[in-house]
Amino acid sequence: MAPLPAELPPPGTPDIEIARAVQPQSILLLAQQRFGLPADSLIPFGHYKAKLNMSHFQLKDPSSYGKLVLVTAITPTPAGEGKTTTSVGLNDGFNQLGLKSSVCLREPSLGPCFGMKGGAAGGGRAQVIPMEDINLHFNGDFHAITAAHNLLASILDNHIHWGSESGLDPRYVTWRRVMDLNDRALRNTIVGLGGAANGLPRETGFDITVASELMAILCMAENINDLKQRLGRIVVGRRRDHSPVTVSDLSAEGAMSILLKDALQPNLVQSLEHNPVFIHGGPFANIAHGCNSVMATRSALSLNDVVVTEAGFGADLGAEKFIDIKCRHSGLRPDAAVLVCTVRALKMQGGVPKSRLATPDLVALREGAVNLERHIRNLRQFGLTPVVSINRFPTDSEDEIAEIQAICHEYDVQAVPAEHWALGGAGATELAQAVLDQMALGKPDVQLLYPDDASLTDKIETIATRLYDAERVDYSPEAKQQLEEYEQLGFGHLPVCIAKTQYSFSANPKLRGAPSGHALPVREARLSAGAGFVVVICGDIMTMPGLPRHPAALDMGLSPEGDVYGLV
Amino acid sequence: MAPLPAELPPPGTPDIEIARAVQPQSILLLAQQRFGLPADSLIPFGHYKAKLNMSHFQLKDPSSYGKLVLVTAITPTPAGEGKTTTSVGLNDGFNQLGLKSSVCLREPSLGPCFGMKGGAAGGGRAQVIPMEDINLHFNGDFHAITAAHNLLASILDNHIHWGSESGLDPRYVTWRRVMDLNDRALRNTIVGLGGAANGLPRETGFDITVASELMAILCMAENINDLKQRLGRIVVGRRRDHSPVTVSDLSAEGAMSILLKDALQPNLVQSLEHNPVFIHGGPFANIAHGCNSVMATRSALSLNDVVVTEAGFGADLGAEKFIDIKCRHSGLRPDAAVLVCTVRALKMQGGVPKSRLATPDLVALREGAVNLERHIRNLRQFGLTPVVSINRFPTDSEDEIAEIQAICHEYDVQAVPAEHWALGGAGATELAQAVLDQMALGKPDVQLLYPDDASLTDKIETIATRLYDAERVDYSPEAKQQLEEYEQLGFGHLPVCIAKTQYSFSANPKLRGAPSGHALPVREARLSAGAGFVVVICGDIMTMPGLPRHPAALDMGLSPEGDVYGLV
Repeated sequence: MAPLPAELPPPGTPDIEIARAVQPQSILLLAQQRFGLPADSLIPFGHYKAKLNMSHFQLKDPSSYGKLVLVTAITPTPAGEGKTTTSVGLNDGFNQLGLKSSVCLREPSLGPCFGMKGGAAGGGRAQVIPMEDINLHFNGDFHAITAAHNLLASILDNHIHWGSESGLDPRYVTWRRVMDLNDRALRNTIVGLGGAANGLPRETGFDITVASELMAILCMAENINDLKQRLGRIVVGRRRDHSPVTVSDLSAEGAMSILLKDALQPNLVQSLEHNPVFIHGGPFANIAHGCNSVMATRSALSLNDVVVTEAGFGADLGAEKFIDIKCRHSGLRPDAAVLVCTVRALKMQGGVPKSRLATPDLVALREGAVNLERHIRNLRQFGLTPVVSINRFPTDSEDEIAEIQAICHEYDVQAVPAEHWALGGAGATELAQAVLDQMALGKPDVQLLYPDDASLTDKIETIATRLYDAERVDYSPEAKQQLEEYEQLGFGHLPVCIAKTQYSFSANPKLRGAPSGHALPVREARLSAGAGFVVVICGDIMTMPGLPRHPAALDMGLSPEGDVYGLV
Repeated sequence: MAPLPAELPPPGTPDIEIARAVQPQSILLLAQQRFGLPADSLIPFGHYKAKLNMSHFQLKDPSSYGKLVLVTAITPTPAGEGKTTTSVGLNDGFNQLGLKSSVCLREPSLGPCFGMKGGAAGGGRAQVIPMEDINLHFNGDFHAITAAHNLLASILDNHIHWGSESGLDPRYVTWRRVMDLNDRALRNTIVGLGGAANGLPRETGFDITVASELMAILCMAENINDLKQRLGRIVVGRRRDHSPVTVSDLSAEGAMSILLKDALQPNLVQSLEHNPVFIHGGPFANIAHGCNSVMATRSALSLNDVVVTEAGFGADLGAEKFIDIKCRHSGLRPDAAVLVCTVRALKMQGGVPKSRLATPDLVALREGAVNLERHIRNLRQFGLTPVVSINRFPTDSEDEIAEIQAICHEYDVQAVPAEHWALGGAGATELAQAVLDQMALGKPDVQLLYPDDASLTDKIETIATRLYDAERVDYSPEAKQQLEEYEQLGFGHLPVCIAKTQYSFSANPKLRGAPSGHALPVREARLSAGAGFVVVICGDIMTMPGLPRHPAALDMGLSPEGDVYGLV
């Protein structure tokens, strides 16, 4: 638990420069000192990154696990909430309090990295290092998923080329290809052109790798055998009689599992304060469940007193899927929840434009706080009383902070300002203590929102009415038919994974705050039989982003000394 | 220099089982013991693979380099010649003689691995380990090339989408996409479908990653700055006025170099006998130059007395490109050449079908030996007197071996039977000694086949007439025009990279032996301005292979213990 070096650049310095100012510890040494793990329990990737070697590392019985703290957030706005930064800072805070704690995060995708958003390894003094490696090829996991996904696609097109022995109808192939990039030109393609030697021409397209069902499978799998079985269950298309064709019908799961065997092992890195960080898996939070892998979470819980983890988007999507999908399948249950908000974001929820967020505005704050209140109420429906973390910005006024605390007090919820961005773990000890206090009240009785045996439409309607305050669900004829077909095929027991805009409780991204009485429009349903859920698409969902007019990539490069610049 | 373990399975055991019977040494320890390299000169990937950390590792001055031995072969046949196996065995042989020696090889591609061919890490007791890792994601190099190649493609289509400020004519984009798989359906595609939000529809396609110009660039680059400059010089298409549009016109070389910076560092692994093996880069031997990277070769030469390296296909393609492209650009020169042949392959060159190769046949052998003789003559044109290595098979008769030796004797060339496949390094010490004897005669005066300032057509004709014994070169009108255009644009000084069938000195794969008087048909020329050559395509060249009816992938998998099977 080395203190942050005194020479660390001041707050406001670009993340990459802060990250470079800290010399990482040898990851083998860190694993040995923190966890007592011998070198052969780890597979090093360079000196500062490693994978856990799951054939040497023994998971504990769940009854001996540490406490699991879920970090979720209010509805996101362009003002930024800082869920990852809070997760990293809270973990550093727990460690500063003398607890053995790790944080479990998702891996970033190259797409947004070269597009607009930049990296995703925290920020300020709450970062994970080595930042460049994490944002780039990070131990090859996404590349392995891309390769396995596209190997299946090539086996599939080859199967069609040689006569489709399985009976697969080439007009109803649902398996697309993937690439870990933003590339709009690949959204809709025709492949197989150029005559008979080049296969059968058909329409298909590419998604970004994080949208691959394999990414969700990697995150749900309990071990390599479970992974193989999940791969075999993937539905890639159908026959003329509408019966599904699976990966095991094509005998492709073996080769795919060879490509994925290393990627399945959790990655270990460290925070700026040299606390252990697990980063593993990165499923999209819309068409997938948006949390890190079950195997990383279990590994961290086997090694620590406390484990912090985050779920994508706001609590309506992230926390709901964390509980109704990840917890349902794995049996894991959170011991506490942290709900991240900022003064700025709440004012934006209250109607203040981005340009005026620096001005104190208690009226707008109160108005926007309905969003926070709705998320508190929703988390209570899962049996969780959250601790609200107010991620501090320099422009926040004391009155505004006090106002959030007063509102939370009405809900019997603690609200704690956190300054990890500026101060690292020391800025998050108060938050960490509040979470410990909350857990000291007793283990929450975490409830799934719906039972397995409810129908798919019942599941959708339960989420829509109870969490989104929707009045009803409107199904497109196509979606209705698909959901009926999935029930008939025996997939009705699966949980649903709602894909809707993250910017509103409704399906309309412009409806901020806490809208009520709206209709949830279900456009389409997609089966992820291997991952174990039915994706319910509400509105437009982009599974392959595009690049902006001036992509971030154009301003990146290597200095003459070989240092990366422009990756922010 | 540990001897081969006594319990090693007998010859004929599947390669993967032999490979698994040997416990690899810690690669950090091996590098330390063999080369005196400290741990921070290496980047470990697991415990048995590493990259050289080129920012810590100091290359020697070329005057202090070890000796460079080029392994090349007769014209390949389906009988198999064993160039890689010989390279690995010869290196083990040099080490058994007490020399400090390493071998430099190319990395295998996932495409053939899942298609038909299986792995590519040697065979029998002349193998490189860990075999599965080398055949799968091997330190992420090919994935990095795939990502960088496709990032450029997405930047390019994005550039067109937003109005093509550079003036790039969307009808003349030459940059395609790549994937490290065999996937015939991707050869010819239309992208950008689905309306204006999804870009401009246009025809394009995918090549296999080893065919990417980036692969050739990675192998030619002297360092990261050279890499960046080569990336910037890549021509991706042209404007309406025919002027070329380069990567630096699109400002994409910085981001591409970020993705490639780790892949650029040479990989170190070991043979079954724990001798150091560098495996780095794997450019196609047809549309690229088919040798491992300059940086790996230089690193090995800086650390050893002797370095063995191989070049793709037969000597007409592999050795020619090694010398006229790799040696020309880098200034490296081989000190000796080994020409690999087998009794079986020479009989096949003499007209014997594959089914009858086990029967001794001196007549066919003598007839087929014209192929060997032509390759000896050709290597002499480069100033090299080869040592012929007869890669022994159990079915070879002593008479046949003696016959090859007698023929070589006429040419004043040593011919040595080698049994590394069955015996490891001990089976190749005689060959190693013969190479040392050859080098003891003095440093060869290695000659490039043509000067830089010859015209592109002169270069093609020199190769065709002097090496292939062609009577003339026939240019398609398209090829003629392209070659003229490249001369006008100032690329006439580049060497040419002939892409023709590897199965014949001619462009007709059925003409075995040593055909003469034929015409070399040049169909097309392609500029690889970043790699530094002009590809000259003679006949049909496949840049994206397809899968067979029953791909090898379908029989692969993981055992319940997590061991790979089916990768052969």
